Amino acid sequence: MMRKLFSLLAIVVLAGCAAPPLRGTGDLGLVIERASGQVSLVDTSQGKPYATVGGLGDLSHASVVYSRDGRYAYVFGRDGGLSKVDLLEARIVKRVLQSGNAIGGSISQDGRIVVAQNYKPGGIKAFDAETLELLSEVPAEYAPGSFSKVVGLADLSGNRFAYALFDGGEIWVSDFSDPRHPTTQRYPAGRQPYDGLVTPDGRHYLAGLFGEDGVALLDTWQPEKGTRWILNNYGRGEEKLPVFKMPHLRGWSMAQGNAYLPAIGRHEVLVVSGSNWQEVGRIAVKGQPVFVMARPDGRQVWVNFAFPDNGWVQVIDTLSGKVVHTLEPGKAILHMEFTPRGEQVWLSARDDNKVVIYDTATLAKVGEFAAQAPSGIFFTSRAQRTGF
Amino acid sequence: MMRKLFSLLAIVVLAGCAAPPLRGTGDLGLVIERASGQVSLVDTSQGKPYATVGGLGDLSHASVVYSRDGRYAYVFGRDGGLSKVDLLEARIVKRVLQSGNAIGGSISQDGRIVVAQNYKPGGIKAFDAETLELLSEVPAEYAPGSFSKVVGLADLSGNRFAYALFDGGEIWVSDFSDPRHPTTQRYPAGRQPYDGLVTPDGRHYLAGLFGEDGVALLDTWQPEKGTRWILNNYGRGEEKLPVFKMPHLRGWSMAQGNAYLPAIGRHEVLVVSGSNWQEVGRIAVKGQPVFVMARPDGRQVWVNFAFPDNGWVQVIDTLSGKVVHTLEPGKAILHMEFTPRGEQVWLSARDDNKVVIYDTATLAKVGEFAAQAPSGIFFTSRAQRTGF
Repeated sequence: MMRKLFSLLAIVVLAGCAAPPLRGTGDLGLVIERASGQVSLVDTSQGKPYATVGGLGDLSHASVVYSRDGRYAYVFGRDGGLSKVDLLEARIVKRVLQSGNAIGGSISQDGRIVVAQNYKPGGIKAFDAETLELLSEVPAEYAPGSFSKVVGLADLSGNRFAYALFDGGEIWVSDFSDPRHPTTQRYPAGRQPYDGLVTPDGRHYLAGLFGEDGVALLDTWQPEKGTRWILNNYGRGEEKLPVFKMPHLRGWSMAQGNAYLPAIGRHEVLVVSGSNWQEVGRIAVKGQPVFVMARPDGRQVWVNFAFPDNGWVQVIDTLSGKVVHTLEPGKAILHMEFTPRGEQVWLSARDDNKVVIYDTATLAKVGEFAAQAPSGIFFTSRAQRTGF
Repeated sequence: MMRKLFSLLAIVVLAGCAAPPLRGTGDLGLVIERASGQVSLVDTSQGKPYATVGGLGDLSHASVVYSRDGRYAYVFGRDGGLSKVDLLEARIVKRVLQSGNAIGGSISQDGRIVVAQNYKPGGIKAFDAETLELLSEVPAEYAPGSFSKVVGLADLSGNRFAYALFDGGEIWVSDFSDPRHPTTQRYPAGRQPYDGLVTPDGRHYLAGLFGEDGVALLDTWQPEKGTRWILNNYGRGEEKLPVFKMPHLRGWSMAQGNAYLPAIGRHEVLVVSGSNWQEVGRIAVKGQPVFVMARPDGRQVWVNFAFPDNGWVQVIDTLSGKVVHTLEPGKAILHMEFTPRGEQVWLSARDDNKVVIYDTATLAKVGEFAAQAPSGIFFTSRAQRTGF
C-alpha cells in the first residue's frame, strides 16, 4: 500500500515538475533541416542545439517568424503547412495545412496576426497568432477569374502587409487593422515580380522583376505617390546570362545608408543609395550572389553564392567598399544568420550536414554542430524587427 | 501517519512545482519606481505589470541593461548598487555595492561583461555578467592623482566601451577583449563632457560639452583619425540661457539618416545629418527637451520636456519635419520607451503615480497602470541593440 502510494505520488511529482527549466528566449533560434522535416532548436549563448522537433512536413524553402514574446516559432513549409513550435517545451503546439503550395509568411506589428503567402491557390491568409484560427484571406485575383502566385510578403506598420503578384504584375498592400475584414490597395509593379522586401525601417517596399530589367519601388509612407522604377539595368539584361539560382531579395541589406543587393546572373553586388535609390557602385565577387546580408552594425556585408560557387563566402568591408575576406566554411552554404548584436554569424553547410559558427571580428571558426542538410537559420531577435 | 505522509508529499510537490510558469522573455521589461526602491516587472503583450521586486536601494537616475537571453535585468542604482534581477522568478539573484556614487552602465556585445560607470571613485568597473564577480577596473586618472567623473558610457563592437571624463575633458575607449586586462585609448573631448551616446550602428561616439559650445565626435571605426568637433552652436551659447535640466544624450535618436537632438536651454530640437554631421534644421517645440526619441521605424520622434513643461509630450513627423501632435499624458513625464516594433509607447507620469500607454498610430491612450513615482522604463529588446 505504502509502496503504491509512493509510486503514485512520485508520478504526481514528476508530472507536475517535468516542465523544462525556466530560461530566457532572447538567445534562442532554430535551424531548418529540410531532408528530415525537422528543426533543431538552438541556443546562441551556448553555441549549440538543445532539442529537435520533427513532423513539420516539407521544409524545402521553409521560413520562420516569431511570436512577440520569442517563445513560439511559426514555421511555413512548402507544402502549405503552418506549424507553431514552442521553443521552451520543444514541441508542436498547433499545426494547420493552410494551402497546397506556400512560400513563407510574416507576422503583424502587434504580433497578433500571422499571414501566409501562397502560390496555389494564389493569395494570402491571415491566422490568429494564438490559435492559428483562420481570420480572413485575400485571394490574389488580379483579373476576373485569374489568380496570381504571391511572393515577397513583408510586414509594415499598422498591421499592414505588402506583397507582389508574380502573374499579376502588381504590388498589393493589405491592411489588417480589422483582422477579419482586410482592405487592399493595388499598385503596378512590372512584369513578373519574383521577390520583394521592405527596408528595415518598414518604409520602402521593393520588388525585383524577372520579366524585365529593373526594380519596382513603393514608398509605403506615401503610397499615394505610386510606384517608381529604379535600377533599370538590374536584371539579366540583353546578354541573357545563365541564372543558376534567383537571389533572395529578403537578403538585401542596408548598411551605412546604402542598400547592398545581389546582381542577377552577374558576379557582382550592387550598391544603391538608400536616399535617392541611384546606383553608387558595384563590387566584384566570386560567384552569383544569393544572400547579401549586413552585419547588424552595417560594417560588414556577407555574401554567399549559387552553385557551383556555393562553398565560398565573401565579406565586404562597407568602409572601404572592398571584399576583405574570402572564406570556405563548408559545402553548399545555403543561409547565414547573425546573432542579434553581430558578434557571430551562423552558416548552414548543407552538404557537410553541419552548421558552422564564425566570430565576425576575427573571422575564426568558433564552433560547429551536426545538422541534417541544414538550410534556413532563424533567431528569435527577428520578432523585434520589421521585414523579417 | 498517512496524513503526515500526504502533507510531506504535498510540500515536496509544491516545492518542486512552485516554479513560475514557462514564458518567453521578448515582451518583458521593468519600470523603475524610484521613491520606493523597487521595480515593477511588466509584460508588453498584456500591457501591465505582473510582479514587483524591492530592495534595490537608491533608484534615482537608475538605468538598466539586459542579459542576452532577456531573462536578467542589471539595475544600476545611484548609490553604486548593481543588482541582477531575474524577470522570470521576480527576485534579486545577486547584488553588489560596487562604488559610492554611480550613474549607469552597459553590457558587452557578447553579453558576458557588465560595466558600471562611476562618479566616485571616478572610473569604470567590469563584472562577470553571470556572477557579478569584479573582473577589472579602469580608474579615470587623467593626470597623476586626478580622477574624473565618468559619463556617457556606451558599448561598442568587440567588447569595447566608450565613455567621457567630465573633469578630464577626454573620451576614452577601453577594450575588454581580455576582460581582466583591459586596454584603453584616450582622445581629447573638450571642456566638461556631460553625457555621450553611440549611434545605433555602434560607429560614432558623441559627447555633449557643458563647459563650451559644441559636440565632440569620434568615429570608432577609424579612431586613429581622432576627435572632430561639430555643432559649434550646440550649447548654451552667449546668452547663457537658464537650463532647467540637462538633456539626456542617450535620448538622441537617428531617423531617416538624421540625428534628432535636444537643444540645451532652447525650446528646439536640432536635426543633424548622420552622414556629414552638419545641422540641417531646427524644430520649435513646447519646452526645453529632455528625451528626444525616435519610434523604431524613424517615422516619428517623441519629445518630453524639463519643468515647467514636463506635462507635455510632442510628436514630430520626420517626413514633414513638423510637430504633428501635442499630448498631455500626465504630470511629470520623465521617460518614454517604445515597444520593440513601435506600435506603442509607454510613458512614466511620475507625479500621477502611473504609467500610461499610447498607440503610436492613433495617438489614443490604450492603457495605464499604477506605479509609485515611476521614472525609467526599460524593455528586454534593449538586449539586442547597441548603445542602450
